[in-house]
Amino acid sequence: MGKTVKDQLGRIVETDKAVKAPVVILVKPQLGENIGAACRCMLNFGLTELRLVAPRDGWPNPAAEPMAAGAITVLQNAKVYETTGEAVVDLKFVLAATARRRELEIPVIGTGDVGRALRAYAHEGTATGILFGPEKAGLTNADVVLADAILTYPVNPAFQSLNLAQAVNIFAYIWASAEDGGAVPDLFQKEISAIADREDLVRMFEHLEQELDDSGFFYPPEKRALMSQNIRAPYTRAKLTAQEVQTLRGIIKALSKGRGRGQNNRGQT
Amino acid sequence: MGKTVKDQLGRIVETDKAVKAPVVILVKPQLGENIGAACRCMLNFGLTELRLVAPRDGWPNPAAEPMAAGAITVLQNAKVYETTGEAVVDLKFVLAATARRRELEIPVIGTGDVGRALRAYAHEGTATGILFGPEKAGLTNADVVLADAILTYPVNPAFQSLNLAQAVNIFAYIWASAEDGGAVPDLFQKEISAIADREDLVRMFEHLEQELDDSGFFYPPEKRALMSQNIRAPYTRAKLTAQEVQTLRGIIKALSKGRGRGQNNRGQT
Repeated sequence: MGKTVKDQLGRIVETDKAVKAPVVILVKPQLGENIGAACRCMLNFGLTELRLVAPRDGWPNPAAEPMAAGAITVLQNAKVYETTGEAVVDLKFVLAATARRRELEIPVIGTGDVGRALRAYAHEGTATGILFGPEKAGLTNADVVLADAILTYPVNPAFQSLNLAQAVNIFAYIWASAEDGGAVPDLFQKEISAIADREDLVRMFEHLEQELDDSGFFYPPEKRALMSQNIRAPYTRAKLTAQEVQTLRGIIKALSKGRGRGQNNRGQT
Repeated sequence: MGKTVKDQLGRIVETDKAVKAPVVILVKPQLGENIGAACRCMLNFGLTELRLVAPRDGWPNPAAEPMAAGAITVLQNAKVYETTGEAVVDLKFVLAATARRRELEIPVIGTGDVGRALRAYAHEGTATGILFGPEKAGLTNADVVLADAILTYPVNPAFQSLNLAQAVNIFAYIWASAEDGGAVPDLFQKEISAIADREDLVRMFEHLEQELDDSGFFYPPEKRALMSQNIRAPYTRAKLTAQEVQTLRGIIKALSKGRGRGQNNRGQT
């Protein structure tokens, strides 16, 4: 058993299992608000390392903090570089996020593949990163050629321009969802309460059908079997819990109690 | 070759190929900025139908337009509703986006499956939608029980709170990226055409609960809302057909008619 460290989400992991999550690099970002919002999205999906290349309004930028909404460590740990080249020197695999078609001999990678690729690198401890261009103009070709691959989102061709933080958000989501292929997160794999015993379900059916017999619901009588099947089907399909069966028994009782009493005691009132 | 129409992105398609994209429903959104930003994300990924339930600052909201950044038609075509129930009556499959664990018997669907499921519905022309809660509190349980499934993103458990527009953004991306998705997951392999209109389902609930009110079932009264949710959940889950809803209405009527008569006519017998 090896040394243990805290990973980027503060969990204790063995060092050989520390995952190297991709670095987000914003090239010449214009609005502090977008930088802050990008921090929040990153942390929402487990990314923590932000780099800024020549932010327009300098750094730190007071407009960023409110939009970071608690992702302050991401903001405070952001590193600033003068050029895109300097910001990627230590990275072994770099993506360029762009929606525009480029006349460059750089492969384009789809969103379906990129998550798996980044996870594979991360588990090897290989440093990766992604470049996002400035709000108005996007990445220049000089930036894009620093990348190993172009990442393009499946955007509406009639309305392509993503907000910068939204673009980071999608990337962060892709990263997070590649961990387990979009399965339901552990948090939600609650024990769906135990399905009721079939016997209880059948008793409930019998109770219901007894009351329906008493009320003259099954008419004509030769259709009783078919009607009864049709009544039972949705309850079986719903995979009722024991609690729900009990609740339904209570409902049947509540709905029919007045009638039943009325009939049984008719002679005595 | 059939008749042609314009689809939601203005493309000419054959009518039998018109795709019914999901409706985005913001429940009690607080900030106009988020509503506008949500419109932009929606249109980026090909979603065009927005519904607002009781927006806090009324509607239209001048704060929304700048953030919509060109997605003005989405904004202008947004429809406003007073209740969540009214906003979903015409939808056959409804998701609730929530990161919080709920004590409700509603299935949780992962992001990997949901895109394929929505595409399958869309190609059949089945109306679907997704509920997003207000910025601070998220969806109430009363909203969540109107949904067929809970959608949850693979968020960082230590920093779960997504900005509202970012949450819509992820959903829109999932929708777009599933365009070429594969088969329909098991959960959804049934012919949807027969599912009852949500409006009929809601009327059935109201009928049932009226009768249960009359019978004194809801006790103590402060638990009525919770009890009502628990009663509704399995019926929503069962994806009742129109015929089954009718049958249930008949059952409710049959079970309660004697009681009703008994009570109404007590003085006269």
